[in-house]
Amino acid sequence: MSDRHPPEDAGIPAAALDCLLRPERIALVGASDKNLFSRRAFAQHARIADARHITLVNPRSSVVHGVETVGSCRDIDGGIDCAFLLTPQHATADALRDAAAGGARAAAILSQGWAEEGPAGRAQQQQLVSLAEDLGITLLGPNHLGFANLWDGIALCALGLDMPIEPGSFALVSQSGAVGSSLVGYAARNDARFSFVVTTGNEAMVTVADVVHHLVEDENTKAIGVFAESIRKPALFRKAARRAAELGKAIVILKAGSSELAAQTAQAHTGALVGDDRVIDAVLRQDGVIRVQSVEDLICTGTLCANVGPLAVAGVGVMSVSGGACDLIADLGQEAGLPLPGFGRRTTDRLAEVLPAYGHPQNPLDITGTAATRPDMWQDAYAAIAAEPSIGLIGAVTSLPTSGEPQRAETFQAIGDAIRSTGVPGVILPQIDQPQSEQVREIKARTGVSTVLPGVERFVRAAAGLARWSTWLAREPQPAPTGHRGALVTLPGSGPLSEHTARQMLADAGVDFIPAVLATSREEAIRAADDVSSAVVLKMCSPHVAHKTELGGVELDLTGADEVGAAYDRLAARAEGAGIRLDGILVSPLRRSGVELLVGVTRDDDWGQVLAIAMGGALVEILDDSALRVLPISRRDVEEMLEELRGHRLLSGFRGSKPADIDRLVDTIMNIASLASALGDQVESVEVNPLLVDGNRIEALDALITRR
Amino acid sequence: MSDRHPPEDAGIPAAALDCLLRPERIALVGASDKNLFSRRAFAQHARIADARHITLVNPRSSVVHGVETVGSCRDIDGGIDCAFLLTPQHATADALRDAAAGGARAAAILSQGWAEEGPAGRAQQQQLVSLAEDLGITLLGPNHLGFANLWDGIALCALGLDMPIEPGSFALVSQSGAVGSSLVGYAARNDARFSFVVTTGNEAMVTVADVVHHLVEDENTKAIGVFAESIRKPALFRKAARRAAELGKAIVILKAGSSELAAQTAQAHTGALVGDDRVIDAVLRQDGVIRVQSVEDLICTGTLCANVGPLAVAGVGVMSVSGGACDLIADLGQEAGLPLPGFGRRTTDRLAEVLPAYGHPQNPLDITGTAATRPDMWQDAYAAIAAEPSIGLIGAVTSLPTSGEPQRAETFQAIGDAIRSTGVPGVILPQIDQPQSEQVREIKARTGVSTVLPGVERFVRAAAGLARWSTWLAREPQPAPTGHRGALVTLPGSGPLSEHTARQMLADAGVDFIPAVLATSREEAIRAADDVSSAVVLKMCSPHVAHKTELGGVELDLTGADEVGAAYDRLAARAEGAGIRLDGILVSPLRRSGVELLVGVTRDDDWGQVLAIAMGGALVEILDDSALRVLPISRRDVEEMLEELRGHRLLSGFRGSKPADIDRLVDTIMNIASLASALGDQVESVEVNPLLVDGNRIEALDALITRR
Repeated sequence: MSDRHPPEDAGIPAAALDCLLRPERIALVGASDKNLFSRRAFAQHARIADARHITLVNPRSSVVHGVETVGSCRDIDGGIDCAFLLTPQHATADALRDAAAGGARAAAILSQGWAEEGPAGRAQQQQLVSLAEDLGITLLGPNHLGFANLWDGIALCALGLDMPIEPGSFALVSQSGAVGSSLVGYAARNDARFSFVVTTGNEAMVTVADVVHHLVEDENTKAIGVFAESIRKPALFRKAARRAAELGKAIVILKAGSSELAAQTAQAHTGALVGDDRVIDAVLRQDGVIRVQSVEDLICTGTLCANVGPLAVAGVGVMSVSGGACDLIADLGQEAGLPLPGFGRRTTDRLAEVLPAYGHPQNPLDITGTAATRPDMWQDAYAAIAAEPSIGLIGAVTSLPTSGEPQRAETFQAIGDAIRSTGVPGVILPQIDQPQSEQVREIKARTGVSTVLPGVERFVRAAAGLARWSTWLAREPQPAPTGHRGALVTLPGSGPLSEHTARQMLADAGVDFIPAVLATSREEAIRAADDVSSAVVLKMCSPHVAHKTELGGVELDLTGADEVGAAYDRLAARAEGAGIRLDGILVSPLRRSGVELLVGVTRDDDWGQVLAIAMGGALVEILDDSALRVLPISRRDVEEMLEELRGHRLLSGFRGSKPADIDRLVDTIMNIASLASALGDQVESVEVNPLLVDGNRIEALDALITRR
Repeated sequence: MSDRHPPEDAGIPAAALDCLLRPERIALVGASDKNLFSRRAFAQHARIADARHITLVNPRSSVVHGVETVGSCRDIDGGIDCAFLLTPQHATADALRDAAAGGARAAAILSQGWAEEGPAGRAQQQQLVSLAEDLGITLLGPNHLGFANLWDGIALCALGLDMPIEPGSFALVSQSGAVGSSLVGYAARNDARFSFVVTTGNEAMVTVADVVHHLVEDENTKAIGVFAESIRKPALFRKAARRAAELGKAIVILKAGSSELAAQTAQAHTGALVGDDRVIDAVLRQDGVIRVQSVEDLICTGTLCANVGPLAVAGVGVMSVSGGACDLIADLGQEAGLPLPGFGRRTTDRLAEVLPAYGHPQNPLDITGTAATRPDMWQDAYAAIAAEPSIGLIGAVTSLPTSGEPQRAETFQAIGDAIRSTGVPGVILPQIDQPQSEQVREIKARTGVSTVLPGVERFVRAAAGLARWSTWLAREPQPAPTGHRGALVTLPGSGPLSEHTARQMLADAGVDFIPAVLATSREEAIRAADDVSSAVVLKMCSPHVAHKTELGGVELDLTGADEVGAAYDRLAARAEGAGIRLDGILVSPLRRSGVELLVGVTRDDDWGQVLAIAMGGALVEILDDSALRVLPISRRDVEEMLEELRGHRLLSGFRGSKPADIDRLVDTIMNIASLASALGDQVESVEVNPLLVDGNRIEALDALITRR
């Protein structure tokens, strides 16, 4: 790899990003009393830091926001590291040059009118990037709302003024400024605390992947939340995800564009393609990134992960004075995949001592109305559940304290004490969404309860995400996938590949095929059929026939010379009629049993080669029962893919059919993936369809390799 | 029907429920300063009505809650209509007698310790009901938290003190007091307004169905929300749902117990079976009841339905200054089934005039950041979208006003004006969950915006529910189903029914069967096969063989006398080996094409006979691709069931297979349902599996009728 081609997963250097996100001397350029964003940015900064840490730049007003300004960045004593440009679009280039002259190595650019407004804007944005590169400046934005670094007391942002200012361990990265603004408001109402908040906007230079990759190393940051419409540096994002896993830090993402409509919409307003959502979903799953569907869940799941970290065991225990809440958690839990393990005998015995006689010691636990006035019951029940080996997190459902009801504070105290004495992390949640008042924050601080989530639905989804991620993180390490290391295989010839060639290459790669003889005459076909003990199948073999069935290119269940001969003639005639030149007719035995799978590798522009395994036959397209992974993959990935299929029970010997030899099946699929990997950029796709699985006989019936 | 057996759908008479829910003179029995619930109930009542409307009863304290008490209900001038009993459980019977002596015809009983605590409590509860019946008293509870009637200023309840007191058009009915309490708190924070709030607890007498059936007639009530773990009077509930549909009022339900775990949990803490959730889901769908999954959605969906009523057309338009919000609504909308129709040419032309040049006139509409300071753009865009014929509701995404940002109030004004001038209802929503401050309420009142929902996720689910219901409500009326009217068919003989008998009955009902000859000897089988032009299938025929395949009771694809004879012998030997007496062996032609369905009618204890249609073969059990309806059904129900199947495309001529004759298929399914209906209580199930659908040939291949 030459110097001129940086690796695919290279990001902006850490020093450059530090200059942007951890500047010591900063300037607010274009500050003006008339500008809403300027007022907000200044007020935001003043809320979390001393206003003296910032210099306002305005050549036309000597006082702005009640503070003395300077006329140029050049005039700032000691120079600056980073400038936040509030200037209008047309003044951006000059302002950037001025900032550079003042020593800035980084700048955040708020203005709109760039790539988001079409081709002309895109060209201007490209010029801006070139200028920044020439000046040695790292650009955040444009068309964003800035960033805040809460631990260092920096807020170069025009986000909503209700942003929480107490620093925490959750870093938030949002492509959209508007979404970022609403996220920080919600965070404030629900006492979520940030280490960083960064909006990336048009990502002319700094992308979500750059920021995530950088912040994953930040010691104050324990989890990172992302809102993104597109992931512009896929390889860097994956690298950041791998590093986050090493460090035991969760990445939670709300990736817009799961629907076709959103994909169109996003393209309209950002000009960025959102990518194939099913592939992105597979990548996120492979890399242990927690995907959520709503802005609220992004904050709640991120906060839980940041506060609690990976669970020692992935089971969740729940206790509540409301039986109704228990039912709702069980219902929502099933939908979200929340593991709510049953309690073992020892735990139920202990709980039986805590509960009144009519209580039921099960999970979720209704600790009965008696506990409303008996904080000790909460503590005892918590301790009993915490001792259950399958439980790594406990949720306690109770209304949040209000001034009229002091006993709620006692419940907090009991749970806080139990969390400390058992060492098993706990969360308090009201039954229904309820913001956290000052009083609640004060009680949390006093009782040592760090995490309160707004209602059962948010809790269930957050805990399910955390549990799933904890399980993923705890998996046994797998041997490094070998796909990419294999010697590159070269495709023969040029032009389309016939099935015969595809078969040959796959067979060489270790894929078993159904026996087949390529007959080029009626007589050869009859002779080949005669060698087979069962009925046979005849099908056209040609690089020009992709969908044989529709063309009438397959004849099934033929016995005897007459049937075989007649079928041969029909196929030959049909091919001639359709103007298709055949390599010949393939003669194979008819298989009457087995489960059909489709195994294929295709290319995704962002993420590379993608392996798909699907239930086969006509049902493939109708039920869309498939699992995807980006290459390279391990054997375990393939095992998990098979388990993800809704029809996977068909492979384990359903209704008297032979159970599949899973090891052999995984071998076969790995071999297909390895061939695709070795062929690399030469191919658009490598597909075996169907792969017939019948006990330990695993045979490809048909194969297709498409040249790129 | 004799007098002694009231109809299944009879509820508690309206006069009795009026006495309970609309009393003029009321008593708080067992009022005490020491009792939290007493303090709450008195304070709650005082918040919404004059305290003089209530008399406190306590024989031991002459002043409670600062008010003079009486010693007995007998001492209350003019008597009482309804008493709220706060007395401990053991004093309930005496208090009830005293209330009756004071004239009470209704009572709400708060105490715990009844059926929810096991068999002894159940017996005591039954005695309480008998006593109430003797006294002519209608009982609400026990083990609940009372009720409030907001329009009449009555709050006989110990619900949270943050219950909204401004009367509205949404009635809330909750089995659980704790859930009810959390619901009213959430309602208050989000400015949802109630006509009634009723908690039913153990439902010793008054059930959720009684209350819904009663309140659906209330003129102030436009929508009813229900939280229930069980529906104790299914027929009455369905009657109420039908009446609600007639009146154009929505019923929204959060029915707990969709998961197996919740079903167990609910049974543990209420002693009530939650029922088969899939059947309940089918009933709710049939009756146009909107089902939600979370407490928050119950309030938001109910409020939207109450405020807006049925939509004239079911499409929803969305506009936002945040492109990110557009994407999220598209994503969440796809998941929730929100109809977001594309705009027609006329609308896009009008929008193009409103938007800046780089804008995209599509749905959801990003009206661009320009609109942040241009309220007129909101109004113009609203008008353009409202003129689109496919749009019946518009959602406008904008942050809620805070003191610092007056332009938000201008946006409210613009949208309020547009709602009024266009007549198309509209909702304002922030991007993320945000409670409604006093300031927001004041701006709503001033600008005439009635509905604000907390965030895109809640909006999407509420609007999807409203749209689905509006579509359901607008369906063409169907001819009354005829199933139940048919003359009752009597099952022949006694004991299990053989397939042969089942075939005969279904054939008489108009179901076509695959031709089959019952052979009782090898020779008869060979002769029967000889009459068939294709290969044949042989299978055992006996009332004692339910799952033929597992027993090896079927031999497929037989040609010629030798194969047929040998297969006959094998089947006969297997039956003998298994000790099964056969009626004979059925000989039928082998069908090589077609789609297999399962069509069956089973019984549900609560809801009666249930029709299931499922994709057939081994996939039935694995993919669980089925649709259910409770009988009687219309042809349209059957059409909709077929469309619900994931595999429904297999019926419309997928990949060159013959499209099914849907009319004929519906006929066949209606005939099966009618037979089951006519057999009524005599049968446990009537099942055709498979029903083979091949173009216009629709044949039952196998049938089973199980006697009850």
